[in-house]
Parts: sequence; C-alpha cells; structure tokens
Amino acid sequence: MSDATTPPGVAELPAILGALQDPVRLEMVRRLGNAGTAVRCTDLYETVGKSTASHHFKILREAGVTERVMVDGNIWQRLRTEAMDEAFPGLLTAVIDAANQDLDPTRK
Amino acid sequence: MSDATTPPGVAELPAILGALQDPVRLEMVRRLGNAGTAVRCTDLYETVGKSTASHHFKILREAGVTERVMVDGNIWQRLRTEAMDEAFPGLLTAVIDAANQDLDPTRK
Repeated sequence: MSDATTPPGVAELPAILGALQDPVRLEMVRRLGNAGTAVRCTDLYETVGKSTASHHFKILREAGVTERVMVDGNIWQRLRTEAMDEAFPGLLTAVIDAANQDLDPTRK
Repeated sequence: MSDATTPPGVAELPAILGALQDPVRLEMVRRLGNAGTAVRCTDLYETVGKSTASHHFKILREAGVTERVMVDGNIWQRLRTEAMDEAFPGLLTAVIDAANQDLDPTRK
C-alpha cells in the first residue's frame, strides 16, 4: 500500500467546509470515518455514477481531506485524519459525528 | 431583547456546512462565537456591502446557525448555540476553533 497522491497540507477552512457540504461527499467522508481505514471507492457511494464519484473524490482530495492509496492494484480512498487533526483539531470528528447524527431518525 | 425570527430547528448538516463554507459567513460566525453574545450586524463584516451582508445573514439564519435579536430597536445577530449543540454536539465549537486556527499565521 503506497500513497498515490498526498498533498503536503490540508486546504484552508472554507475549502474544507466547501468539500464537506455536498451530501454525496459528506456521505463518502462519513463512511470513511466509520470504517477507520482505507475503503474501496465503490463502497463509498450509491446515488451517483462512477465519473461523478471521481469528481467528488477529487474535490475531497484537493481539500486535503482524503488521499488515494493503492490496494492490490486498485485505488482506494482514505481519510487524512492525522493531517486534518493537526490542522484543525476535532473538526473532522465533529463533522463525522454530526453526519452520523444527521442520519438518526430519532433526532427530529 | 426579543427574538424576531427563530426557526424551530437547525437545518440538515449539508445546509449547515454550506452556510459555513463561505469565507464571509465563516468570519461572521467566528466573530459571533468569540463574542459569545449578540453582536451588532456591522461589527460582523468588513469586506462586503450592507446588502451582500444581509444576504449572508439570511443564509446563516435559514440554516438555523444564527438568529436575529432586537437590541434598542436595532437588529443584532446571535449564534443559536444551544440549538446547534443539541442537533450536532461539538460541531459549532469545532468550526469556530478551526476558523480561529485558520487565521493563525504560525499554523502554516
């Protein structure tokens, strides 16, 4: 497993929140957060096609939220948890917790 | 001091993150968070005009992040900290902390 593209740092906060505010991308990040490890791309979305998903992965990657890793010759996605926590402590966890909360039907 | 418009709940997470991802709105929320109380509208922005600021305040309000309060006959803005914390514990604090961090020149 080796990193294919790892940006040196994470983006500035508006770009990160901009990456996270899309429902498809938020769900990708929520699943990655709950998995706690790299996840096969196709396990991270259902409601969009492959090329749309690639576009969303790119936005997350350019914001520094995720990175691509090679697993058995395939590209998987992984959260850049350490880099994010270093830049903005607690933010990613709060967003993932909120995303899990947002799916909880007992909340409203 | 009485609430002029208080939506019953906060919006869903993508709408909240969408409200927060704009740099002007993020700065408004950061200042409100640091103030810890209602703040006069004109103390919450500098880089935009009054009508643009009103538009931004509306988006924050419609997401349930802020509310308007009347102070001496003027409209001030206030974070809906309790409602936000009830819906998404820790999220608003994490975003405000991150916004303060994002301004820290020693970070990068």
